[in-house]
Amino acid sequence: MMKGFAAGLWVFAESAEKFGSYVGTNPVRKQIEMAASVPGLKGVELISPLHIDLKNARDVKGWLDDAGLEPVSVNPYVWTEPTWKYGAFTSPDPTVRQQAIDRGKEAVEIGHIIGARRMCLWPGEDGWDYHFQADYRRLWELEAEGVRQIALHDPETRIGVEYKLHEPRTHMLISNAAKAALLGEELGLPNVGGYLDFGHALMAREVAAESVVVLARRNRLMGVHVNDNYGLGDDDIVVGSVHFWEMVEFLLTLDEVGYDGWLTLDLVPKREEVVAACAHSIHALQVYLGLIKHLDRAALRAAQADMDALKVQRLIHDMLGQGVPA
Amino acid sequence: MMKGFAAGLWVFAESAEKFGSYVGTNPVRKQIEMAASVPGLKGVELISPLHIDLKNARDVKGWLDDAGLEPVSVNPYVWTEPTWKYGAFTSPDPTVRQQAIDRGKEAVEIGHIIGARRMCLWPGEDGWDYHFQADYRRLWELEAEGVRQIALHDPETRIGVEYKLHEPRTHMLISNAAKAALLGEELGLPNVGGYLDFGHALMAREVAAESVVVLARRNRLMGVHVNDNYGLGDDDIVVGSVHFWEMVEFLLTLDEVGYDGWLTLDLVPKREEVVAACAHSIHALQVYLGLIKHLDRAALRAAQADMDALKVQRLIHDMLGQGVPA
Amino acid sequence: MMKGFAAGLWVFAESAEKFGSYVGTNPVRKQIEMAASVPGLKGVELISPLHIDLKNARDVKGWLDDAGLEPVSVNPYVWTEPTWKYGAFTSPDPTVRQQAIDRGKEAVEIGHIIGARRMCLWPGEDGWDYHFQADYRRLWELEAEGVRQIALHDPETRIGVEYKLHEPRTHMLISNAAKAALLGEELGLPNVGGYLDFGHALMAREVAAESVVVLARRNRLMGVHVNDNYGLGDDDIVVGSVHFWEMVEFLLTLDEVGYDGWLTLDLVPKREEVVAACAHSIHALQVYLGLIKHLDRAALRAAQADMDALKVQRLIHDMLGQGVPA
Amino acid sequence: MMKGFAAGLWVFAESAEKFGSYVGTNPVRKQIEMAASVPGLKGVELISPLHIDLKNARDVKGWLDDAGLEPVSVNPYVWTEPTWKYGAFTSPDPTVRQQAIDRGKEAVEIGHIIGARRMCLWPGEDGWDYHFQADYRRLWELEAEGVRQIALHDPETRIGVEYKLHEPRTHMLISNAAKAALLGEELGLPNVGGYLDFGHALMAREVAAESVVVLARRNRLMGVHVNDNYGLGDDDIVVGSVHFWEMVEFLLTLDEVGYDGWLTLDLVPKREEVVAACAHSIHALQVYLGLIKHLDRAALRAAQADMDALKVQRLIHDMLGQGVPA
Repeated sequence: MMKGFAAGLWVFAESAEKFGSYVGTNPVRKQIEMAASVPGLKGVELISPLHIDLKNARDVKGWLDDAGLEPVSVNPYVWTEPTWKYGAFTSPDPTVRQQAIDRGKEAVEIGHIIGARRMCLWPGEDGWDYHFQADYRRLWELEAEGVRQIALHDPETRIGVEYKLHEPRTHMLISNAAKAALLGEELGLPNVGGYLDFGHALMAREVAAESVVVLARRNRLMGVHVNDNYGLGDDDIVVGSVHFWEMVEFLLTLDEVGYDGWLTLDLVPKREEVVAACAHSIHALQVYLGLIKHLDRAALRAAQADMDALKVQRLIHDMLGQGVPA
Repeated sequence: MMKGFAAGLWVFAESAEKFGSYVGTNPVRKQIEMAASVPGLKGVELISPLHIDLKNARDVKGWLDDAGLEPVSVNPYVWTEPTWKYGAFTSPDPTVRQQAIDRGKEAVEIGHIIGARRMCLWPGEDGWDYHFQADYRRLWELEAEGVRQIALHDPETRIGVEYKLHEPRTHMLISNAAKAALLGEELGLPNVGGYLDFGHALMAREVAAESVVVLARRNRLMGVHVNDNYGLGDDDIVVGSVHFWEMVEFLLTLDEVGYDGWLTLDLVPKREEVVAACAHSIHALQVYLGLIKHLDRAALRAAQADMDALKVQRLIHDMLGQGVPA
Repeated sequence: MMKGFAAGLWVFAESAEKFGSYVGTNPVRKQIEMAASVPGLKGVELISPLHIDLKNARDVKGWLDDAGLEPVSVNPYVWTEPTWKYGAFTSPDPTVRQQAIDRGKEAVEIGHIIGARRMCLWPGEDGWDYHFQADYRRLWELEAEGVRQIALHDPETRIGVEYKLHEPRTHMLISNAAKAALLGEELGLPNVGGYLDFGHALMAREVAAESVVVLARRNRLMGVHVNDNYGLGDDDIVVGSVHFWEMVEFLLTLDEVGYDGWLTLDLVPKREEVVAACAHSIHALQVYLGLIKHLDRAALRAAQADMDALKVQRLIHDMLGQGVPA
Repeated sequence: MMKGFAAGLWVFAESAEKFGSYVGTNPVRKQIEMAASVPGLKGVELISPLHIDLKNARDVKGWLDDAGLEPVSVNPYVWTEPTWKYGAFTSPDPTVRQQAIDRGKEAVEIGHIIGARRMCLWPGEDGWDYHFQADYRRLWELEAEGVRQIALHDPETRIGVEYKLHEPRTHMLISNAAKAALLGEELGLPNVGGYLDFGHALMAREVAAESVVVLARRNRLMGVHVNDNYGLGDDDIVVGSVHFWEMVEFLLTLDEVGYDGWLTLDLVPKREEVVAACAHSIHALQVYLGLIKHLDRAALRAAQADMDALKVQRLIHDMLGQGVPA
């Protein structure tokens, strides 16, 4: 049973007028208010220390309580800042690597304070831009070591590495679902796995529903981000606007594997108002979940058992026309 | 007003058991019977001389009449045969080029006999496989000359070049909608344009609805093939199975530009029964056309006038739940 | 005979430390100095009014003269600013459309003052982000009208529309080489064509050398940008770092069609020093031009006449080992 | 130290005139003769029972000895035949699954007879064609079980699952390098890993050199296929014709990780003569290996340690001009 709809708090960091005229970052409290104003939104992912740190953790938790929002995860900030120019856990500089690990451990601690035991770990700068530029063996060893140290810091905190094919590097090391799962298997740690961003699965030429299984079958699906894109870059546009069947199959499969986490919106609306974009995305998700209620699952399982593609196609088209909430 | 649903007769050429054990090509009359057995199918595209030639044209027309099928187009066969190994209209061999042109003119003549004034011209072997292998200037001149001669042979026959990014060559010369339109503009001939295969648009990273406009706005949309794929190769799988919104937008746009031709199924079911695959595809198209009937077009136009993405998304989601025929 | 190596002056707008800590834009004069410091760089493309306007045009020209740089083109700024949020020439707002046209005409005027008769016109905001969001017919009519008015303003100024598949919109209207050529054909204006960015060709799944021909065969190749990427987004990384054969074939083909313009670097180094990235890119171009000198062109033409792929492959591999300047 | 150049014996199965006119399969002995005629080719991969079975194994080994060819691997045939229509190890039919496992075990036995202890296992039909068609959990369990049984049959035989994104299914289950590695980790069997086909890495949007590391760092790189394509489908064209830097980096990395297996050509020349296509591919590989000899590896390692992209680019360009064998 899924917990409900959430959003990355960072979605609300930038104001609606940002196109072409950056007007600065909204204060955290304002971001929380905006999140709370989205109908149906019940949780937020936080970035530490951007949104929350050891000092202000109780204050932020209070603001969340006031707003009726649950903390979903605390995610350490290991990208964009000059420090991470050539990587975080895989930086050539051991001091930088230690800083990244410290950020991760601190996020765990903050999670303890506010009651969040999940982490979306996005080593977005760990990768390379050019052929021949990286010693891939070294990158892998360093990445595994960094994740290991954070994971060992608290075996109760479930760490999902948010894989992504590219951006901001032209190549990110942990680029697909199987690499995230592999990291967990290799480390032999049950609290290491993947954080599955629907759009990132598309970039990696995955079928997102199958990526759910790649991670969930070994209990390594730590969290989910939803959004959409066109398969080339991380557009982070509103849910369901491009990949209709893929999203319906994704939601169905999350249910089938018993995913009990959140559906977190990770949107970057460039020309749309942020709160409205989130509200529409939740509406779209509700439409799809409504469609799924009308799916004849027994018939689907029977058709899958025979791999009967045409019967399956008929069943999913029969869903249409039945699922929109009044 | 679209004419209705058709199919390439070639879709029925191979028997259902073909996977892994090629059992030969069905006879033409059998192919026609199979086509006629698909509920809702009213027309077929023919390949000359595979399905029809100058000698048997009246016989084939009789079979079509008996089966209640209209001839949509006569398409000259200029691929796969050893003759076309290095191209048809762009072959290094002038004799081969002349043969291709003759095939085209003959298709026009056959069309006259059976009452079809459209041609889907697929120069599938005109392209290259390797960098540096082709003199692109020469390919363009030869392609334009070949198409020109066929088009001049009968200005009443509308010739649509079926563009495609690749397969069987790794690169086909006329690879996207704008190239087909450009050919027509350059030749200054109103009866030269593009034949838009939905799956080929995906391969060229086009939005198929926009490709409709690229061709239709200069009256160069000569015909339409429908199917689906995953954007990498020409899977020719059943309609609507992958690209839901793209197909709905495609059908809507065909209606908006006043397309008055056929929707021709071009499927290659590898593991599914052919007639059933066609029947399901027509069912899916009917579902989508049903959805479109429930679209508030005035509201859509107003939202488009403002480029209001969220209003547009809401409108298209409101279609769902209303469109399935009883 | 190519004119030589140039760069977009915007390449030098941002300082080398920009990763993660935006430190503002370099002053124009500083940008010119940086450009001049790149060994082998002889020309620059300018953006109006960012780099140059009617008032300071003579000053800027003086700075260029002092630096030993030729002005390659004046390119009107019709993106990023809030005005262009929903498009420039295709904006829903007629006032905005007029502003875009005025910017274009002004760029022509500035070009007259400083002696540049080429324009790289990048309507980067003219497109859409979502399915159903745009009336594609309207976009096409407006785009054609905008380009027409600028082109008619001065038939001597050659206007190349810089096509691009996506970014900043998820879809840009003029997305491939054939669309740019089509625009010129449709308008019937000899001074309208395409500006070919090597990386943009890759994004459109084009073979860049063939795109040269698509534009040049009708005398519509107005200019060239060089850089590299991985085929998904516009990475603008250093020349030759990914697509080796494609770049060599591109340079060869430019020579074959008699391209007499500049090779303009359009790089956005995120983690590398800008001047060094440009210097290396010119070095790489020189290496490739050196290789081409050792290509047996007569043999290549003979092999192309037969489409003999293996002979062609052998010839291009024979180039290696001979082309590096001492 | 790599063993040398090999080829899949299947490369020689079809005659050179096959384009457009299938003339049947060459006899095995003829295929072996053709392979032996390729300059520099020293080994072949065999498919059982297509090329070799328990009965004729000693005969085939004799033919190989006569021809001076080493057996590289015995690969069980679990695709294309009607039996495998809906999968081999993941077939809905338990009898079919057992047949696939038996084929695998038999290949191991044949390997023992002829002295090959590697297997390229390509479960090409294990996947799906349509969204919702497959129960991905079931596919994974069945695939793992099938591989497990073959691997346990003889722990000395190293089994590399040849991953591939698509073809013949629109989606193959084991689609990327990390999935193959994951399978080995999950099973906890040291003799299970991946067979890395260079072109398949491209299809999965991998950097092939990094895929080498993904597999080799846990000692799971069982074998290597070389060829080239354009990143969309499995063109299997001649080596080095498209991805120059990627191939050079791939060869360099194989050397760096101490790969001690073969480089096996897996080509499907559609319009080129097979033996000549193989000969050219080996020539190209020799050119690249020659270039690598001139690479300043110490300088490369130093530049990698700093992630200095421009220094790295300079170093690899310095290789050019030095590597072509006389």
